[in-house]
Amino acid sequence: MARRVVVVDDPRDPSLSDYVSLRDSQLRRSLETSRGMFIAEGEKIIRRAAEAGCRARSFLLQDRWLDGLSDVVENCGDAPVYVGSAALVEQVSGFHVHRGALAAFERPPARSWEDVLAGDRIMVCQDLVDHTNMGSILRVAAALGWDAVVVSQGSADPLYRRAIKASMGASLQLPWRRMDHDGADLQRIHDAGFHVVATALVEDAVALENFRPRQRVALLLGTEGHGLSADWIAAADVSVQIPMAEGIDSLNVATAAAICGWALRSSPPAGDVFVP
Amino acid sequence: MARRVVVVDDPRDPSLSDYVSLRDSQLRRSLETSRGMFIAEGEKIIRRAAEAGCRARSFLLQDRWLDGLSDVVENCGDAPVYVGSAALVEQVSGFHVHRGALAAFERPPARSWEDVLAGDRIMVCQDLVDHTNMGSILRVAAALGWDAVVVSQGSADPLYRRAIKASMGASLQLPWRRMDHDGADLQRIHDAGFHVVATALVEDAVALENFRPRQRVALLLGTEGHGLSADWIAAADVSVQIPMAEGIDSLNVATAAAICGWALRSSPPAGDVFVP
Repeated sequence: MARRVVVVDDPRDPSLSDYVSLRDSQLRRSLETSRGMFIAEGEKIIRRAAEAGCRARSFLLQDRWLDGLSDVVENCGDAPVYVGSAALVEQVSGFHVHRGALAAFERPPARSWEDVLAGDRIMVCQDLVDHTNMGSILRVAAALGWDAVVVSQGSADPLYRRAIKASMGASLQLPWRRMDHDGADLQRIHDAGFHVVATALVEDAVALENFRPRQRVALLLGTEGHGLSADWIAAADVSVQIPMAEGIDSLNVATAAAICGWALRSSPPAGDVFVP
Repeated sequence: MARRVVVVDDPRDPSLSDYVSLRDSQLRRSLETSRGMFIAEGEKIIRRAAEAGCRARSFLLQDRWLDGLSDVVENCGDAPVYVGSAALVEQVSGFHVHRGALAAFERPPARSWEDVLAGDRIMVCQDLVDHTNMGSILRVAAALGWDAVVVSQGSADPLYRRAIKASMGASLQLPWRRMDHDGADLQRIHDAGFHVVATALVEDAVALENFRPRQRVALLLGTEGHGLSADWIAAADVSVQIPMAEGIDSLNVATAAAICGWALRSSPPAGDVFVP
C-alpha cells in the first residue's frame, strides 16, 4: 500500500482535480458527468461504494483516516491515496470536510430499462432539484422494499455527493436510472403494465387511504414547489392525495414519498394484529 | 409607515443586533432564548408569524421587499423597518439571505401542559439536534392532524430560523412545548392516559402494520444516529418498528415520523375503497 500513498500540500496539484469545488453543484454535475465519476464522502459512504463494486479512481484523506480505511484501500486496486492536512482538503474541495475522507469512484454503468422495470414497485421523480430530497427518496424506497427509482431528464443527480449522503448509500444499492425522454419513458412505464399513480392535489384525486393499487405500481413524485406538471398528471392512470389538516397545503416531496411508499408498499406481511 | 423605515448602511449598527450571525446556531440559541425572540426568514414565514399573532420587534429588508410586505408591516404596530442592501444584510447575518427579508419576533409564551396534552395524538422528540428534522416533524405532524409536539430538554429549538423554515411555519401553528424534566414529563404524558409508543429497533418491537394503538397515542422519536435511549424505551408501553428491507438498517427520524404519523393517525375517515 505504501507506494500508492502520496502526500500532497499544493491545493492546485492537478492530481486533485477530481475534488475541486465540491459545493458547486452545477460545476460538479458537468465535471462528474463528463469524467464519468462521482465523489463519496465519509468512511461509511466510501465503504458502501467499494462494496457496491464501484472502481476507485483515487482517495483524498486526512492522514488520520489512513488506518480506518486501509482495508478498503487495499481492495481498490492501484487507485492512488492522496493524503493531506485538513486545511488542504478544505482548500481543494471548498468546504470543511467533516469526516476528512473523500474518494472519487467511476460511475457505475446506467441500469437497463429491463432492470429498473423488473419489479412491482417503482418511484418516478419529475425534476427534483434538491439533493437531500433525492437522497431521502432513494433511502426510503430501498428501506420499504420498492424495487427501483426512475428520475426525469431534469432531475438532480442521485450520485451527487450530498444525494448519496442523504440516501445513506442507497443510491449505490437500489437500481435507478435517468429517463432518456420524459414523455416516451413515462409511456414505456405505462406499457410495462404499471398502475401509474400521480401524487397530486387535484380535484379528482383519491384519498390515499381509499386507494387500492393494481399489482404493479409506479408512483409519480413531482418537483419541489410546483409538484407534478399537468402532462405528467394526465399521463397517470389515477391521482392520489394524502389528506391534510385544514390550513396545511402541502408536504415535502420526500415526506410524501415516505407516506405513499409505506401505504402502497408491496404485499405487506399478513401478520396477526397485535394489541398490547 | 414612512417614519418607521430606517435606511441602514453600517453592519455594526446596534439596532441590528437581533440579526447577527444567523448561521451560528449555538450563539443564536443563547441569544434568542435570553432575549425571548426568534427570527423569521422569507416573506412566507414572516407572514405566518404575523398571522400567528407573534409581536414583531423589527424587520430587516432589502428595499425591494418593502412593497411586498407593506401590509404585514402596517399591521405590526411600531416595529421599526430597517432597509439595507443585499451586501449589508449578508454582512450582518453572515450568510446570503436568499429571499432578502428577515424579521425578529417576540417568542410566543410556552404552551401549558394542559394545552399540549389536550388532544389524542402527540409526537415526543428526544434530543433531536438537526433543525431540518425538527421542522419536518412539526410540518408532518400538523399535516397529518396530530395535535401537538413535545421536545426533550436537549432538543433543537423549533423556533430556530431553519427549523421554522423546514416546518413551513408549522412551528408557529401547532402547539408544542419543551420538557422541564425529561423523566418526569414522560411520566406525566403516561399518566395523562396516552399509549406511549417508542419507535425503536429492539427485539420485542411490534411491526408497525400489526400494531393497533389505544385511543390516545404519544409517539416517541429518538435522536439522530442513536435513536431513543434505553430509559425512554423502558418508559414506553410498547415499541414499534417499521419493517425494512434486508441490508437497510435505519430510516431518517423525520421519515420515520412521517410513516408512523400516517399509520397511527387519529380516526382515518372510513371512506369507501376506491378501485379505479
